[in-house]
Amino acid sequence: MVPAGGIGGARLLRGLAAVVGDDAVITVIGNTGDDIWVHGLRVCPDLDTVMYTLGNGISEERGWGREDETFTVKDELAAYGVEPTWFGLGDRDTATHLIRTQLLHAGYPLSAVTAALCDRWKPGVQLLPMSDERVETHVVVDDPDQTPEPGQAAARRAIHFQEWWIRYRAQLPAHSFAYVGLDNAKPGPGVIEAIDTCDLIIIPPSNPVVSVGTILQIPGIREAIVEAPAPVVGISPIIAGAPVRGMADACLRAIDVPTTATGIARHYGPRRALIPIGASGGGILDAWLIDTSDAAAVPDIEALGITCAAVPLLMSNLAKTADMARAAMDLVGFTP
Amino acid sequence: MVPAGGIGGARLLRGLAAVVGDDAVITVIGNTGDDIWVHGLRVCPDLDTVMYTLGNGISEERGWGREDETFTVKDELAAYGVEPTWFGLGDRDTATHLIRTQLLHAGYPLSAVTAALCDRWKPGVQLLPMSDERVETHVVVDDPDQTPEPGQAAARRAIHFQEWWIRYRAQLPAHSFAYVGLDNAKPGPGVIEAIDTCDLIIIPPSNPVVSVGTILQIPGIREAIVEAPAPVVGISPIIAGAPVRGMADACLRAIDVPTTATGIARHYGPRRALIPIGASGGGILDAWLIDTSDAAAVPDIEALGITCAAVPLLMSNLAKTADMARAAMDLVGFTP
Repeated sequence: MVPAGGIGGARLLRGLAAVVGDDAVITVIGNTGDDIWVHGLRVCPDLDTVMYTLGNGISEERGWGREDETFTVKDELAAYGVEPTWFGLGDRDTATHLIRTQLLHAGYPLSAVTAALCDRWKPGVQLLPMSDERVETHVVVDDPDQTPEPGQAAARRAIHFQEWWIRYRAQLPAHSFAYVGLDNAKPGPGVIEAIDTCDLIIIPPSNPVVSVGTILQIPGIREAIVEAPAPVVGISPIIAGAPVRGMADACLRAIDVPTTATGIARHYGPRRALIPIGASGGGILDAWLIDTSDAAAVPDIEALGITCAAVPLLMSNLAKTADMARAAMDLVGFTP
Repeated sequence: MVPAGGIGGARLLRGLAAVVGDDAVITVIGNTGDDIWVHGLRVCPDLDTVMYTLGNGISEERGWGREDETFTVKDELAAYGVEPTWFGLGDRDTATHLIRTQLLHAGYPLSAVTAALCDRWKPGVQLLPMSDERVETHVVVDDPDQTPEPGQAAARRAIHFQEWWIRYRAQLPAHSFAYVGLDNAKPGPGVIEAIDTCDLIIIPPSNPVVSVGTILQIPGIREAIVEAPAPVVGISPIIAGAPVRGMADACLRAIDVPTTATGIARHYGPRRALIPIGASGGGILDAWLIDTSDAAAVPDIEALGITCAAVPLLMSNLAKTADMARAAMDLVGFTP
């Protein structure tokens, strides 16, 4: 079972699929906190990144959206002057969103809609949204449209994660994250069952705050991972003290977590520790795989009660990604 | 005031605008009976044809949709296997439909949405949907998916006009037309006022059954035209006994109207006739402009109590279209 965010999760899954072969069942719990209604369409960036990546439809260069994409619809919307203009709505992608939106309006839950879309892409994994309820990550920032009076503190405003990430490139300092809808959210169909019955849980090198972190916020999911019979191994999204891709440091800073392999290991926390470490609700890691460039951190992480090893983590091709997945399995003694 | 359907209405409007100049107000009552929900989008083919044609965005070659159109979204929808695949959803066009759909879902009436879309295109006319209520033309045909038992009559089914027109190219014989939603439909905002206060009403060479005919079905519109103080002149959609474009003969056959200049004049009927002629509800024509090739019909039409003249009606360029519009005005003694 893999709780996956965007590019990092999707690439890890490719390597994992190569290692475990066709007979193994890989269940992916997809982050839907980045989902957004835009131009009347329901867009699920992380679900689509997993689906397109494993279905050979992803733009390898961008890491999101479709290969050979065009942006006619987006340009036309801009010509009408409708906002937002910063969202990268591709033409091929639009078809996916149209189908999803129509099915949601017809009353199908997101889990069923995702399964229907996967009928085309055949990603080879069972892709489950973390929740069928709408949960959207918002970011509390100083209102970019207001200049504070002299001597006054800036007014704060919560904007959608996508606006912060894409429009502002995560350059507006984040004070905190708010998960709108969380109180009413339940884990999606099959999510808890997958955690309870799987043989191995891998935390991929996704953003620990807004990808994996959001999934863990859904009431019941963190608790299920804490108690799961399967071992849990995480893969660090840090290489040489910096996030491999994306702007995870801006997210980590907002919750006072250092952008280091050790900082994130401590944030996730050791499972079943006598003294609680990490985010509230219980630690989730048995083991933590870090990059060779961060190997000096191994003793600190082991001291937390988390098994640790250092191997090359850059997923620059399928063979290296598969090696990484194999190393993660080895760390908890799992044989595919 | 011009009650307009698709291509024929839009082209006439171009010529009319050239004749009357910028100071005159042209109000267009647009047919919305062809409107359809497709892939979750609200598509209004006739409103868009008028808007694009007068806003210089129309595909001149096709006569519908946008110039330089691409069909990526359509192809992708087909790759997902979702129906219908026969609808020509262009990428540029999709942006228009997305905006319309979002505004309709937000609660704006179609009239307000149309005005918002026209903000971009500046068609130079006031484009009013015939109704803000949903009225959709359906066509009763022998069910194309069933083969009748020997000796049995074929089962009949009503399909959306667009399915009949585009998918079946109007080749399935139409038994009748049904206007779904008509009972609850009222004329759109400004429609009756435009009819009551305008200086001239022109019935363009649009399809008399499913374009102009649908507009006349909206309770109150035909009655207002019958009683309007302004003269009413119609332009025949027939040249040499055949429709200029489209498949109007298939529509006329369904309601037992001959596909001739005289047949349609009789169907529309003379205004304020002592003995009612034409469709029920009162005749609407003071005058009827027909093509030179049909000039032999002038006496028959005059005998109906309708002023008639024959001039060239093929709208092959703007100058000829303007000449035609001028001839229509002359026929009722109207000076722009």
